[in-house]
Amino acid sequence: MALIVQKFGGTSVGTVERIEQVADKVKKFREAGDDLVVVLSAMSGETNRLIDLAKKISDQPVPRELDVIVSTGEQVTIALLAMALIKRGIPAVSYTGNQVRILTDSAHNKARILQIDDQKIRGDLKAGRVVVVAGFQGVDEHGNITTLGRGGSDTTGVALAAALKADECQIYTDVDGVYTTDPRVVAQAQRLDKITFEEMLEMASLGSKVLQIRAVEFAGKYNVPLRVLHSFQEGPGTLITIDEEESMEQPIISGIAFNRDEAKLTIRGVPDTPGVAFKILGPISAANIEVDMIVQNVSHDNTTDFTFTVHRNDYDKAHKVLDKTAAELNAREVVGDTNIAKVSIVGVGMRSHAGVASRMFEALAKESINIQMISTSEIKVSVVIEEKYLELAVRALHTAFELDAPARQGE
Amino acid sequence: MALIVQKFGGTSVGTVERIEQVADKVKKFREAGDDLVVVLSAMSGETNRLIDLAKKISDQPVPRELDVIVSTGEQVTIALLAMALIKRGIPAVSYTGNQVRILTDSAHNKARILQIDDQKIRGDLKAGRVVVVAGFQGVDEHGNITTLGRGGSDTTGVALAAALKADECQIYTDVDGVYTTDPRVVAQAQRLDKITFEEMLEMASLGSKVLQIRAVEFAGKYNVPLRVLHSFQEGPGTLITIDEEESMEQPIISGIAFNRDEAKLTIRGVPDTPGVAFKILGPISAANIEVDMIVQNVSHDNTTDFTFTVHRNDYDKAHKVLDKTAAELNAREVVGDTNIAKVSIVGVGMRSHAGVASRMFEALAKESINIQMISTSEIKVSVVIEEKYLELAVRALHTAFELDAPARQGE
Repeated sequence: MALIVQKFGGTSVGTVERIEQVADKVKKFREAGDDLVVVLSAMSGETNRLIDLAKKISDQPVPRELDVIVSTGEQVTIALLAMALIKRGIPAVSYTGNQVRILTDSAHNKARILQIDDQKIRGDLKAGRVVVVAGFQGVDEHGNITTLGRGGSDTTGVALAAALKADECQIYTDVDGVYTTDPRVVAQAQRLDKITFEEMLEMASLGSKVLQIRAVEFAGKYNVPLRVLHSFQEGPGTLITIDEEESMEQPIISGIAFNRDEAKLTIRGVPDTPGVAFKILGPISAANIEVDMIVQNVSHDNTTDFTFTVHRNDYDKAHKVLDKTAAELNAREVVGDTNIAKVSIVGVGMRSHAGVASRMFEALAKESINIQMISTSEIKVSVVIEEKYLELAVRALHTAFELDAPARQGE
Repeated sequence: MALIVQKFGGTSVGTVERIEQVADKVKKFREAGDDLVVVLSAMSGETNRLIDLAKKISDQPVPRELDVIVSTGEQVTIALLAMALIKRGIPAVSYTGNQVRILTDSAHNKARILQIDDQKIRGDLKAGRVVVVAGFQGVDEHGNITTLGRGGSDTTGVALAAALKADECQIYTDVDGVYTTDPRVVAQAQRLDKITFEEMLEMASLGSKVLQIRAVEFAGKYNVPLRVLHSFQEGPGTLITIDEEESMEQPIISGIAFNRDEAKLTIRGVPDTPGVAFKILGPISAANIEVDMIVQNVSHDNTTDFTFTVHRNDYDKAHKVLDKTAAELNAREVVGDTNIAKVSIVGVGMRSHAGVASRMFEALAKESINIQMISTSEIKVSVVIEEKYLELAVRALHTAFELDAPARQGE
């Protein structure tokens, strides 16, 4: 008999019919003997509806009051699911973040969980009840309602699993697991049975939007086994764990991630002196622009070129900031490009295998794809290429690293 | 500088535009120097929408979970108003029933307020903030969200005013006060400047649906001056107080109430023995049918006739119950009538004035209106008449008791 935390997102509880389906699923687990804590998001679209309502009053809604409003979204779904379970003869009770009590800091709209009181939930579980908890929300030490920010329901699920020392935290979504790459780009993409937290972090931040990064970090930190599953299809999903020992037997590369949302900016001919990187990126950061890849190569004639990528939406803003910096630094020129894509290979296996990067470059060279930037981490190699080659590059790498599904590979 | 509790109903906060108007009104009071606690209902229609959602899951929604859902309605409006006030430069903060803490019993969907913690609110008032509180809801000793039942927001307002020892509780509605009778029936109906709690109770229960009966009872019990005002028109409204001394100078009758929603049932020829009233009304009560007027006259030949009125919707059900009772008691027959109306004159003045009832009967006789039933209390005389005479009777009584507006009276 396991203790399982199950989290269902907005699409999974988007209608009363869907909520009934979730209740059927929860009932099956309960009848199999598991103790269950179910975390829910608001019905899909509801949070946006509430935010729009607030924005009719004020473009910049007061953060404290915005939390009071948007937290009602989950409050509705938890009670509906509790009702649906009770209707099926399954004792159940719903709790808001405040009722549990999920204590957070006071950073309204983007609060962080500080502590979870597990007393009430444990009492209910002991009494045989399924506990349905509102995701995404909590309460600060003064009793103010807080929300964790978008996607915070995943974090609520993981935090509850950690506090309760649950055997598993199951995140139900509209995909049946984590794939070696996007199946829309590579038909032979395969569902992974297992992936490590670190790999998942690299995959998530690189555009495989299955899980909230914060939730994965949290799960890794407290070693909560995390499983991604499809809400309404049967299947084992993908388990995300700390278990690295077995990775020796696994493929070197777990997956191919990619991102089309970036743009590249280069400032040429800046003096190669200490502090120049800060002089360039300081104003960018001050303008609230997030930077992803940063590459600086060796210098020529005491000057160097400095390149970084930003979100495509921030490109114009970043270009203006950089133009000003270039003038101050007496740089030669600023050039940029929005027609780029980033492709990354991710895998803990590459730690113990030399030559992974060169195998990547070889595969791209075979397809005559030029590499514009390279950046590496312990478990990841990312390259920037011209956007039009993106699909070709991903497919080539998927095959080169032997990720193609055997059934369809036709070898 | 007064401390005022202001309550705005669902229609007054039915749209964002209306909420902005309420904010303008509150701002005016605040700038005049008053300390303000504002109690809000949910946007009109929202509570029904939430109940309908719950009923899609279950015809008989679990009461505890239904409260979790419907309490979100006010949670949205309080935060919207707080935002609108802050936008106007008026410091404000919103609280749910749980946050205040409005402690209730655990009777979900129809809870009663046990105690209100005034600490938080007093702190905010001292700091110059307008406090916006969710009406209709509270929390029980175990931390479960409760609701007070329909119209409970009035009760929240009065209970807060009592707990804070406020100078006045203002109930904003879609009428500009309490009238001598329904202006749609009598064009000369006048707004009352003042009315006593007892009169208001009789008026309210008799069909002048301006205020919740429970709220008036509560206000009377704790002597909270209650004022009914129009949400979006200027005017003094009607003050409801304990102040009876001045009534000596006031008209004998404060108003004419009436009700078309009743039906009459008579059981004829029942043995005139002790306990027969209970034998007749016991099964009616057991069938959850509420009874209004009850009349039993002197007996003939050891049998008597027993008449009572019920809501028209309960007529068929009550008739069936009564048929069964009649068979058991060997009664002669059961007769009923749904074409009736009740008209009542209400006024604390009648305590010190003899002949009020006969003056009423005289006025009705002059119009050849037959009286079917009579029932009296200390400050009220009610008669049941044929429904088609209702308007005529109300106008005749309004004139006979000198309630017609002088400007339009044309004497």
